[in-house]
Amino acid sequence: MGLSNLGPGRSVVLRAAFLLFVFVQSSNGGNILVFPVDGSHWVNMKILMEELHGRGHTMTVVRASSSWYIKETSPLYSSITIEDSMKFDDFFDDYLKRQIEFLKGQASVLKFFSATWEFFVMLSDAHRLACKMLERMLDDPDLMKGLQDEKFDLVLTDPAISAGVMLAKYLKIPLVLNARWICSGEGHFAIAPSPLSYVPVPGSGHSDKMTFSQRVKNALFYGLILFQDMFVVGPHYKTLCSKYFDAECDVLAYTQAADIWLMRLDFVFDFPRPTMPNVVYMGGFQCKPSKALPDDLEAFVQSAGEHGIIIMSLGTLVKGLPSDMAHQIAAAFAQLPQKVIWRHLGERPSTLGNNTMLVQWMPQNDLLGHPQIKAFVAHGGTNGIQEAIYHGVPVLGVPLFFDQFDNLLRVRERGGGLILELSELNRRTFHESLQEVMHNPSYRANMRRLSRLHRDQPVAPLDLAVFWVEFVMRNKGATHLRTDSYKLPWYAYHSVDVILTLLSAAGLLLFTIFAAIRYVCHRMCYRKKMKHD
Amino acid sequence: MGLSNLGPGRSVVLRAAFLLFVFVQSSNGGNILVFPVDGSHWVNMKILMEELHGRGHTMTVVRASSSWYIKETSPLYSSITIEDSMKFDDFFDDYLKRQIEFLKGQASVLKFFSATWEFFVMLSDAHRLACKMLERMLDDPDLMKGLQDEKFDLVLTDPAISAGVMLAKYLKIPLVLNARWICSGEGHFAIAPSPLSYVPVPGSGHSDKMTFSQRVKNALFYGLILFQDMFVVGPHYKTLCSKYFDAECDVLAYTQAADIWLMRLDFVFDFPRPTMPNVVYMGGFQCKPSKALPDDLEAFVQSAGEHGIIIMSLGTLVKGLPSDMAHQIAAAFAQLPQKVIWRHLGERPSTLGNNTMLVQWMPQNDLLGHPQIKAFVAHGGTNGIQEAIYHGVPVLGVPLFFDQFDNLLRVRERGGGLILELSELNRRTFHESLQEVMHNPSYRANMRRLSRLHRDQPVAPLDLAVFWVEFVMRNKGATHLRTDSYKLPWYAYHSVDVILTLLSAAGLLLFTIFAAIRYVCHRMCYRKKMKHD
Repeated sequence: MGLSNLGPGRSVVLRAAFLLFVFVQSSNGGNILVFPVDGSHWVNMKILMEELHGRGHTMTVVRASSSWYIKETSPLYSSITIEDSMKFDDFFDDYLKRQIEFLKGQASVLKFFSATWEFFVMLSDAHRLACKMLERMLDDPDLMKGLQDEKFDLVLTDPAISAGVMLAKYLKIPLVLNARWICSGEGHFAIAPSPLSYVPVPGSGHSDKMTFSQRVKNALFYGLILFQDMFVVGPHYKTLCSKYFDAECDVLAYTQAADIWLMRLDFVFDFPRPTMPNVVYMGGFQCKPSKALPDDLEAFVQSAGEHGIIIMSLGTLVKGLPSDMAHQIAAAFAQLPQKVIWRHLGERPSTLGNNTMLVQWMPQNDLLGHPQIKAFVAHGGTNGIQEAIYHGVPVLGVPLFFDQFDNLLRVRERGGGLILELSELNRRTFHESLQEVMHNPSYRANMRRLSRLHRDQPVAPLDLAVFWVEFVMRNKGATHLRTDSYKLPWYAYHSVDVILTLLSAAGLLLFTIFAAIRYVCHRMCYRKKMKHD
Repeated sequence: MGLSNLGPGRSVVLRAAFLLFVFVQSSNGGNILVFPVDGSHWVNMKILMEELHGRGHTMTVVRASSSWYIKETSPLYSSITIEDSMKFDDFFDDYLKRQIEFLKGQASVLKFFSATWEFFVMLSDAHRLACKMLERMLDDPDLMKGLQDEKFDLVLTDPAISAGVMLAKYLKIPLVLNARWICSGEGHFAIAPSPLSYVPVPGSGHSDKMTFSQRVKNALFYGLILFQDMFVVGPHYKTLCSKYFDAECDVLAYTQAADIWLMRLDFVFDFPRPTMPNVVYMGGFQCKPSKALPDDLEAFVQSAGEHGIIIMSLGTLVKGLPSDMAHQIAAAFAQLPQKVIWRHLGERPSTLGNNTMLVQWMPQNDLLGHPQIKAFVAHGGTNGIQEAIYHGVPVLGVPLFFDQFDNLLRVRERGGGLILELSELNRRTFHESLQEVMHNPSYRANMRRLSRLHRDQPVAPLDLAVFWVEFVMRNKGATHLRTDSYKLPWYAYHSVDVILTLLSAAGLLLFTIFAAIRYVCHRMCYRKKMKHD
């Protein structure tokens, strides 16, 4: 078998095809209403929007006046700003501090519930604020009239918070979701049956191969998600429903009625699981070849020589780790012959070695694609992991919260990295884990294999995403790809009524047979008795 | 919204991209072992093989000496012929005759079971013969040594009959299925959870929207399929298992372990339903633009003038309808101003009009793509329906047996045609149905809409199929896309053990609380009593 592996030529060819495709196909652009979620979710949305902008589509973004990342003016879009008074500044740093408190010392059921409670409060706040924002919009007749007059072709939103879903329904516009999670856990729980025996629930920390006790834990976590749905997140949407929608209003049903789900996943990253035809996997859509580094950074990288470099970033949500942890990490880095680039916004650790450069920001993609890269110390955000897979770089994961452990677990299960929990992080463990990830060649080999698989797709993920967004605009939806089964009552969906009917029928049949036999026997005995008499 | 619809330009662009892709990517071809199913299944397999041949892959086909369609010599492949003494000549015509007997007069439960029995006998024979053929191969050490020495990259087979699946397992070679059905009904019942509440079972004759009684019927049909699996088809493979495989051998598990399923479906044709990441929908992969007709046929078509033409074909399995039915149909055709081209191998009906041309074979795709076409009278084979969708031609369906009613139902549900059952077919009903399909513009409009949707895909179906075949060769399988959940015992897969454990725990908890309350009450009552005393 002599098929060569896919070289970089492939993506060039397929990109060229798509550009030609643009030329042949589109005449005028569409008109898109974007209702994003702030933070790292917005970073993802913007990548998709840049591509759509490049293809001539017009976009209007709904943002909060307090927005963290979403600028009021941009060449990409016009914006509608809704006043609010939210402050996110130190929110996640405070949250992280409390998480670390929980993680230190012995784990206990009480601690788990306390941490979960904390998470629920945070989640409830986020949804409440988004719902308030939408209420303000719906209460503004001029604004709503303006939106209706715009005749949008599409609402593009992130269902991590469902206010955009509600707005699409209110305006009766086709809906495309740019999704990593929906409010009730991963999207697939809402859109395709996902047996708990091999589909791990977000937060369970398990893979698709579970022992009996892991499956019990998975089921309990599913219970938690149902609870979250009903009592944490749901009530905010119920309030909206009762004020602005009809009696049938249900936020989960509205989400399930979306035309296309663009999932920020693929099955090189995630475990295989059932899915529906209207779910498009665009995992790694943000990945692109690395560019040259700025001169000073390139000089620093080259100074590492044969030892190569390590980069460390814990994402955009938190500014840095608590100073004692940063201290331990800096000391571990100082022991290494590698050069280290570390995105750390906190206090400068006193143990910092000469080999370590602290930065406020780094060109992460260009560094991951640099030939000198040896390892990536990451918190496990989806984007960072996808970029590590794309460039084939082994990962040492230090998960902070949310889906980060689950993301890193997917890398570890495929032999592409290790996980070091905050509760176990110290100078020695950090140093040992890094050495293992860098010097055991299996981690790099596995990440390179994942990289090859990720790049070996018929259409590049971003092109696929754009295709389906435009498909929905061309065809005014994608009804033929989505099921209406969510409209069934639960007992019908799960065939409970059918099973009970068939069991009753079988019971009746058995009873009739039994009664008939009994009657015949009785008659025969009676006759016998008569004879005897 | 001004995006123009996809013109023919798109497919040209994407084809060009794929041809470039070939150039960039492939150096040497792969070596493929093909174990096809005869009849119309082979017609499908050959289309895929022609494309693979064009891309430089070498193929070896396993065929029976009695083969109906599969030639011993071909420029496409080399062949291995296994001796057998099967005779298929009039098999399906006889089967059809008995089916019609059943259909005429009143339907009854007894008749249904009799017809099902007939079907089971036929199915069992087909599987028995294929298993015998495989046994002959496995008993021939020289042949098996030769196959092993060939170092095939891939087994390509149709799981309608699973002998090819067993061979792939025996030779330990990656497996790609070219599937419309597997022995136990549609593939998805084996590969993704498919709730009986909205996924109709093959043969049930229902859509994805069912009433309560239809859902009961659907569940009963599922029971039939389980029966078929266990007692009709299964035993033949169990015999193979016990002779040549280990104790764990299970034909369904081997099928589920396939790397890629190329399903001859898409969701323009079929109802949306859960699926797994290793299932590739290539429905309509055989469709292509029409070519010019031979001169005599073109002259005949043009002679129809503004009235246009109708074509009728009942597929390749049967030679023709019984003469009384053909008589009625010919008389109905004779009443029409349209010209008719009818593939009919039986006796020439005496009622045949001058407007009707009987043919032994017709260039069906070129006629369906002809601007003069008004309607397609079809038996409802998957290929014909896909071609009608591709060209946007309304359908009058006359289903004979197997999946044909189900296929036609999918067209009818989308408003693209009507179904006329054999039991109701006479001159009047046939004439009326044809008039309705031709003169109510909604049928044509709906078929055109389906045609647009079918052509609006990021990659053409055949290119997609070839991509995934080559993917499996490049990557020696597609393990990351398929679940291993089929290896779980049934009670674990369905979480029965987990549910019982959680219920027991909840029961125990409730019991403990109840006992504690009772104990406390008892003590309090006792104290009170003591006081009173």
